[in-house]
Amino acid sequence: MFRENESGKAKSVNVIIVGGGFGGLYAAKALAGKPVNVILIDKKNYHTFQPLLYQVATAVLSPGEIAEPLRRILRRARNINVIMAEVSGFDLAGTTVKLNDGTELSYDYLIVAAGARHTYFGHEDWEQYAPGLKTIEDSVDIRRRILLAFELAELKAQITGSHDPLHFAIIGGGPTGVELAGAIADIATRALARDFKAVDTTKTRITVYEGSCRILGIYPEHLSKKAVRQLEELGIGVVTGKMVTDVEAERIKVGDDWVPVSLALWATGVKASPLGRSFGVTVDGWGRVMVEPDLSVPGHPEIFIIGDMSSLVDIQGKPVPPLASAAIQEGKFASENILRDLSGKSRAKFKYRDWGSMAPIGRHRAVALIGRWGLSGFFAWLTWAFVHIFLLIGFRNRLSVFYEWIWAYFTRERSARLITGDINGILRKKTNARKS
Amino acid sequence: MFRENESGKAKSVNVIIVGGGFGGLYAAKALAGKPVNVILIDKKNYHTFQPLLYQVATAVLSPGEIAEPLRRILRRARNINVIMAEVSGFDLAGTTVKLNDGTELSYDYLIVAAGARHTYFGHEDWEQYAPGLKTIEDSVDIRRRILLAFELAELKAQITGSHDPLHFAIIGGGPTGVELAGAIADIATRALARDFKAVDTTKTRITVYEGSCRILGIYPEHLSKKAVRQLEELGIGVVTGKMVTDVEAERIKVGDDWVPVSLALWATGVKASPLGRSFGVTVDGWGRVMVEPDLSVPGHPEIFIIGDMSSLVDIQGKPVPPLASAAIQEGKFASENILRDLSGKSRAKFKYRDWGSMAPIGRHRAVALIGRWGLSGFFAWLTWAFVHIFLLIGFRNRLSVFYEWIWAYFTRERSARLITGDINGILRKKTNARKS
Repeated sequence: MFRENESGKAKSVNVIIVGGGFGGLYAAKALAGKPVNVILIDKKNYHTFQPLLYQVATAVLSPGEIAEPLRRILRRARNINVIMAEVSGFDLAGTTVKLNDGTELSYDYLIVAAGARHTYFGHEDWEQYAPGLKTIEDSVDIRRRILLAFELAELKAQITGSHDPLHFAIIGGGPTGVELAGAIADIATRALARDFKAVDTTKTRITVYEGSCRILGIYPEHLSKKAVRQLEELGIGVVTGKMVTDVEAERIKVGDDWVPVSLALWATGVKASPLGRSFGVTVDGWGRVMVEPDLSVPGHPEIFIIGDMSSLVDIQGKPVPPLASAAIQEGKFASENILRDLSGKSRAKFKYRDWGSMAPIGRHRAVALIGRWGLSGFFAWLTWAFVHIFLLIGFRNRLSVFYEWIWAYFTRERSARLITGDINGILRKKTNARKS
Repeated sequence: MFRENESGKAKSVNVIIVGGGFGGLYAAKALAGKPVNVILIDKKNYHTFQPLLYQVATAVLSPGEIAEPLRRILRRARNINVIMAEVSGFDLAGTTVKLNDGTELSYDYLIVAAGARHTYFGHEDWEQYAPGLKTIEDSVDIRRRILLAFELAELKAQITGSHDPLHFAIIGGGPTGVELAGAIADIATRALARDFKAVDTTKTRITVYEGSCRILGIYPEHLSKKAVRQLEELGIGVVTGKMVTDVEAERIKVGDDWVPVSLALWATGVKASPLGRSFGVTVDGWGRVMVEPDLSVPGHPEIFIIGDMSSLVDIQGKPVPPLASAAIQEGKFASENILRDLSGKSRAKFKYRDWGSMAPIGRHRAVALIGRWGLSGFFAWLTWAFVHIFLLIGFRNRLSVFYEWIWAYFTRERSARLITGDINGILRKKTNARKS
């Protein structure tokens, strides 16, 4: 398309979308077949279905089951090209996107949807001991660490006759922390319990640490209480009102006390993509750009910022939450505003439609908030499972996930229990550490 | 079990098996429920179904579909324990296995089945440019490189309007090389061709380089010729009688000529595990231990070496080939000889039963040799597919692989096309290199 412009043919409108998560993907889909040329840029060649990442981390699903190549999703749209590249910044005056190999691509409209990652509040060295869960690589790393904790305990028990009790600490009591805790309880007490002959799984402890006064703070208080009860039914401890103040190998400091852990996981602290600071406008404490009601950047009507990178109080006066469903709505909406521009209509202002939110807790429990309607227990879980199967992108994945879930549900088996990657170093170091 | 011995209880027989590949796994299975205590040691927590590794490398199957946790396979055998650890050596006089954390485990019988890896004949620096295919990690790495070659060509074509023709070079014309070439032809000309809008797939070249005078040297000459014809039908070039004498980034030297390549893959040169040199006995040129007819190490009747680590001319006068089916037979056989010892019978001598061998070539071609019966084309492929589905360990995997294959066959789709791992560095470096 750039060549066409340079050679002076009919000017076509170039839209560049940065990021192939929910926001960017749905923005692209809304432009399929429209009279614009679209380039979708992502560091990865696939879209990740983030709500199910925790199931990869706990060996229920394989990475391929919750990720789909962007090219395949957008294959039929002739006006959309996908390129796999990393964006290093923008030239706002020259209206170009800079790739980190030095290439510049020019846009007429720009949609930035580069999402967020977890932050360690200035203690980035904690990440090696307490990884977070945002990407496919994160989920495979966490899966490896969970399984390795069991392998090391088994090795020790086989050789010495006993092992330290396993303790999994989840730092952060939001939806991700609750999901992870429930799923680890499932795998630890059921699927793995039968395979590890020397590990005493009855000693396995799982604790959720939440710094504020209650878990699932985004839900009403009665649902938080129900979530605590459901976690406790699974044998999971919940500690609230205490901050984790330090993280080291095999221990974390909760308030003033060191607690030994087999594995700590980080499920708190979100920070928007640093690309948000490229626009010379106000960002909030999480690094999110405060956008206009039409989702554009103040002073740059040609640039839209959507999803977890942006912050907005919508026309109903409600803050738009950092959820997949909000990113999807914003993606579609930004593209619609571009199309309105092109057909000479005035832009619309974003209104968030709240379809509810849900947090699954283990194998057949959940809490859900749909409008003012709070649900918990099995029915909430069923709603969650139903919604997520049908949301999953790509017919094929849907079938495959459904098959895995049915299998896991009835057999309580875990299919994806591989420890891949170079673990020899870890294995050697940790068994030495434990012997000494 | 060690504790029992130390405390002076009834002496039980300890068998240690090193390696959970085909040989070690079937040795363990043959000891399930027998009056021995078994420890199976592997660096990985899973068994890999090696004959299908090339399908992971070419994005047909996911890693989890061809690997199964060893603990799960052996869960029901109460007398078998699995530990995930790396063996650093043996104390033959003290009859112990040394783990690399310093632990020693004592054995009455030892079965060593640590397999083989590829070798670069002293040019180990070639590995970074031309990876080989022996492990799950290798297959994911190769998948990443194949997909990345297309992504880079697409990026270049989008920005500059053209790209260098893709050229995949397979170094080695044995079964692995032929399998890989056929599978890459499939993915390049069909599944990926539809997704990469700017890459000209008609320019994609695939070449198999074989140093000896013909490919598939283990098969009779007429089958080699048929394999060449089938490769050529897929558009794959075959170069024989020329050695690859140097390998660099993006080019290889064939004889005296440098050939540009997008990606080179190493499918030649096998070297047995270095553990074979621990026994103070003769090893052959590939590092394989020359074992006695009962599969034991000369001078050490309590130690058996099986699979790709051992070398034997069996009692029929035929060399036992380095195939999965031979390793399986040897594993069972070594265990049976241990049980014969325990019941006071004399040991048997190994006789290899030749069930044939097969090499698939792309989507519906293959060559197969079953006894003196040579097959090629679609019927050979059907035989190959049938045999491999039913050989795959674990009922669940079998179903899942079957499902993937049926899907891939009819849709010509590839389901596992994720580029995972840290590729930003590669991406940056390579696009820079191409620009300059």
